Amino acid sequence: MNVYLDNAATTAMDERVIEAMLPFMKSHYGNPSSVHRQGREVRTAIEKSRKKVAELLNTSPSEIFFTSGGTEADNTAIVCGIESHGITHAITSPLEHHAVLHTLEVCAKKGLIKLSILDVNEKGEIDLNQLEELLRSNLNSLVSLMHANNEIGNLNDLNKIGNLCKEYGAFFHSDTVQTMGHYVHNLKELPVNSLVAGGHKFHGPKGSGFLYVNKDKKIHPFIYGGAQERNMRGGTENVIGIIGITKALELAYSEMESHQAHVISLKNHFIKGIQEAIPGVTFNGLSGDIEKSLYTVLNVSLPPSEANRGMLLFNLDLEGISASGGSACSSGATVGSHVLRALNHNPERDAVRFSFSRYNTIEEIDYTISKLKDLYLVEA
Amino acid sequence: MNVYLDNAATTAMDERVIEAMLPFMKSHYGNPSSVHRQGREVRTAIEKSRKKVAELLNTSPSEIFFTSGGTEADNTAIVCGIESHGITHAITSPLEHHAVLHTLEVCAKKGLIKLSILDVNEKGEIDLNQLEELLRSNLNSLVSLMHANNEIGNLNDLNKIGNLCKEYGAFFHSDTVQTMGHYVHNLKELPVNSLVAGGHKFHGPKGSGFLYVNKDKKIHPFIYGGAQERNMRGGTENVIGIIGITKALELAYSEMESHQAHVISLKNHFIKGIQEAIPGVTFNGLSGDIEKSLYTVLNVSLPPSEANRGMLLFNLDLEGISASGGSACSSGATVGSHVLRALNHNPERDAVRFSFSRYNTIEEIDYTISKLKDLYLVEA
Repeated sequence: MNVYLDNAATTAMDERVIEAMLPFMKSHYGNPSSVHRQGREVRTAIEKSRKKVAELLNTSPSEIFFTSGGTEADNTAIVCGIESHGITHAITSPLEHHAVLHTLEVCAKKGLIKLSILDVNEKGEIDLNQLEELLRSNLNSLVSLMHANNEIGNLNDLNKIGNLCKEYGAFFHSDTVQTMGHYVHNLKELPVNSLVAGGHKFHGPKGSGFLYVNKDKKIHPFIYGGAQERNMRGGTENVIGIIGITKALELAYSEMESHQAHVISLKNHFIKGIQEAIPGVTFNGLSGDIEKSLYTVLNVSLPPSEANRGMLLFNLDLEGISASGGSACSSGATVGSHVLRALNHNPERDAVRFSFSRYNTIEEIDYTISKLKDLYLVEA
Repeated sequence: MNVYLDNAATTAMDERVIEAMLPFMKSHYGNPSSVHRQGREVRTAIEKSRKKVAELLNTSPSEIFFTSGGTEADNTAIVCGIESHGITHAITSPLEHHAVLHTLEVCAKKGLIKLSILDVNEKGEIDLNQLEELLRSNLNSLVSLMHANNEIGNLNDLNKIGNLCKEYGAFFHSDTVQTMGHYVHNLKELPVNSLVAGGHKFHGPKGSGFLYVNKDKKIHPFIYGGAQERNMRGGTENVIGIIGITKALELAYSEMESHQAHVISLKNHFIKGIQEAIPGVTFNGLSGDIEKSLYTVLNVSLPPSEANRGMLLFNLDLEGISASGGSACSSGATVGSHVLRALNHNPERDAVRFSFSRYNTIEEIDYTISKLKDLYLVEA
């Protein structure tokens, strides 16, 4: 059996997304900046996409900018947010994705900002009082806090954080890569200045993304080179990427309820099953709490085991089960997860992130639990 | 008849490129940073692609970094070249693509560099003596000069420029977007520190590109966020883009001779035909000179005509002919071509860039010339 449980790393593309992209590979090849018919038809498709994304997020098309992915969008919001608004102080948490953390660290290293990193408890929760204290003593800060953590699933309350930021005049950017397409983002209500999406996290293509920037906190471009994206991002548009991410978001919104219900049932089934199968199992961060964590992510902490230590992912892979030790984005590196380190996760225990999608089944979860049970019973 | 003569703006994708990409949309969807089987198979495909690109350009895979396109690659080379090598002076020409010109202007505006812009004559030629003078009086400069101009086709001598840069210790970046896949770039011989490619200029996908940076002049990343691209570009890789640009480059190299011969014959046919059809026609820049210009580009300057002034592209479009007034990248803007302005092109005359690909035919050229003749005979 092949079981793909690494959907927080990337998802399989939806057939309907591929279908939507194909005409723009095969026949509609014009450059959207060209004024002739081939250009205009592609320009129309891009602007329709922008309008559709804006409509789904309940905002204006003039606030949506297509990018090459969530990471470029995060870099843009942070670097250009800081530069455009004369910001000299930023606040983040140690659990942010490297697209945020490394970008802010580079800005700090260049002397552009002083960087404050919030404390987290061993469940990965931040302290809003500490955030408020920092905001109060550093007016005109940039705050970058993710919606949901990609490794442990912890959900931050964007409303509370955003309202604090508003109160103290801070620029609030949120890395929403893990929640876009999985939760409703109503930008008429949500007090964020910028947020981002990466298409491949919700069954769209890799290399696609977008950045939302609120019209009250406009920023300058990150990539220069042309009038594309209303002068906000130079470079010929990744047309198939734009068509693909838009179709994927449209499908995500139209099927969100059934998607949520299905994936939540998988996660609940996994939690219950693994607790029964392996005594001493725990869940990292808040991922075991359905209410407080991303429903697509479960980060399992397994009891110390000689046979599996450092080998668990490998052992699962041999059984056809694909899961992850941390963020895929840093798994090329030999260092462990910075998120689990920040939580003081016991290094004697193996941690595995299982992440689900609408394509997973209860049978796959049962198979995975039975294989985990086998791996841990060897020593019993 | 539909005639697409805007191949310098973008090209139709090669069917074989689409075929190569499809498996990575449909089944091989893993995140290349994931360590399980789905991740590894995609990682393998990416590294094979990097090796193939390096092999075609006769360089090392460690010097090839995939990007979201030529523009991001230009931005990276310039911004990070300047920052990584403590450069405080840059030299360019007024004919560069905005991906270079605007990026350098922004660096100058931020006070990072002093920017020297070379003079050009009315044919768009730069003066190498002036370049040498500037290099001599500003050691450790960055020089950014394109291989071929996208509007008027002028070819720069990268060997001469590169050797001058070497002599005076300058960082030499070349925007090779228009020549990549159309000429051989032998990086063992070519004295450049960095160059770029955009896949959609040679029948690959939009949103794909790469940056070559010589190992002697390493630069830091432009986009932060993960260990991807050997720590040089954060963000989940645009896998289909990487597969596509590689296949397109492979095909371009394997078919370069026949491609060149065919396109040169089209351009010669166009030059001869239009000169016979419309008295007083001239060619902007060096584009009428087959030896000194990009064989894919012909920039035609037409005699003053009341009926066509400012309407020529529109009139051609009505006849099914797609051409361009300048760079597609700035045609969204209401301003005219900065390249033609730098050449003091007579605004009474209309300028049209016709750009060819291997998919064009002699019949299409004849049709285009006959339509141009009709448009200009109206007044005779």
